[in-house]
Amino acid sequence: MRIIGIDPGTGILGFGVIETAKNGKAKLVDGGVIRTPVKEDDAVRLQTIFDELTDIIVDTKPTEMAVEKLFFAQNVTTAMTVAQARGVVLLCGMQAGLKIAEYTPLQIKQALTGYGRAEKKQVQEMVRVILELKEIPQPDDCADALATALTHAATVRVN
Amino acid sequence: MRIIGIDPGTGILGFGVIETAKNGKAKLVDGGVIRTPVKEDDAVRLQTIFDELTDIIVDTKPTEMAVEKLFFAQNVTTAMTVAQARGVVLLCGMQAGLKIAEYTPLQIKQALTGYGRAEKKQVQEMVRVILELKEIPQPDDCADALATALTHAATVRVN
Repeated sequence: MRIIGIDPGTGILGFGVIETAKNGKAKLVDGGVIRTPVKEDDAVRLQTIFDELTDIIVDTKPTEMAVEKLFFAQNVTTAMTVAQARGVVLLCGMQAGLKIAEYTPLQIKQALTGYGRAEKKQVQEMVRVILELKEIPQPDDCADALATALTHAATVRVN
Repeated sequence: MRIIGIDPGTGILGFGVIETAKNGKAKLVDGGVIRTPVKEDDAVRLQTIFDELTDIIVDTKPTEMAVEKLFFAQNVTTAMTVAQARGVVLLCGMQAGLKIAEYTPLQIKQALTGYGRAEKKQVQEMVRVILELKEIPQPDDCADALATALTHAATVRVN
């Protein structure tokens, strides 16, 4: 199964694609970020996210998409902007015909470390270990996206 | 100039299309709402909004899109869902090649009634008067969308 994980954002949106084997082993296919300039209008930035993410899906051919759910943010304006990007990400997945799943930060921490209050860094270290990488993928947004993809892989396997 | 105004929402999204003449007079072209079932997944609802709004744009041929800006909502979860829909609306406008403008509720009240703290009902009554309609367009979401379109018409005219 090939899964694309997404950590939604407007300035920087992380993505990570993994392939899982029948024995549950996961390997890294691709990962990175989509950046959009702060000085651009929201609509232009959303268009860039849509176009680039569509290209990434075409290139990496996932069949499932796992998206991090937003939790309550202290800055509501930022949260709104991220939610707008999240809407475009979900649309992108639908248009590409992917199965879409959503996971809260709590579910992601739980799935990767077994502990819902784990530190972000511990989760990222588990991404490195599971995917047998030398370093934690950079930037953080990419590692977080891979964590979301791995959560989906673990959830689908358990069910 | 032909303008489509949007009052973003997930359960119900209002739209209103107006045509303005050189003398500034505006007339109603079309208006209504897009509804999506609460029981559906967010991604499916966003897809419906994107598809239906795209059809409306193709049918009514606006060249400009005016979208109401979200203000701080008491219910953050609802606000997030509306913001996701708003992201899809902006993308829709971009994909259709429209010029996009955004207006806060304050700007809309100011433009239509001259008073930033006007009641919602007063704004809707002004929509009725300006467009020379017998009744305020129903439901409210459609009237609000038309108010946003009329704000854009007035703003473009002043500038």
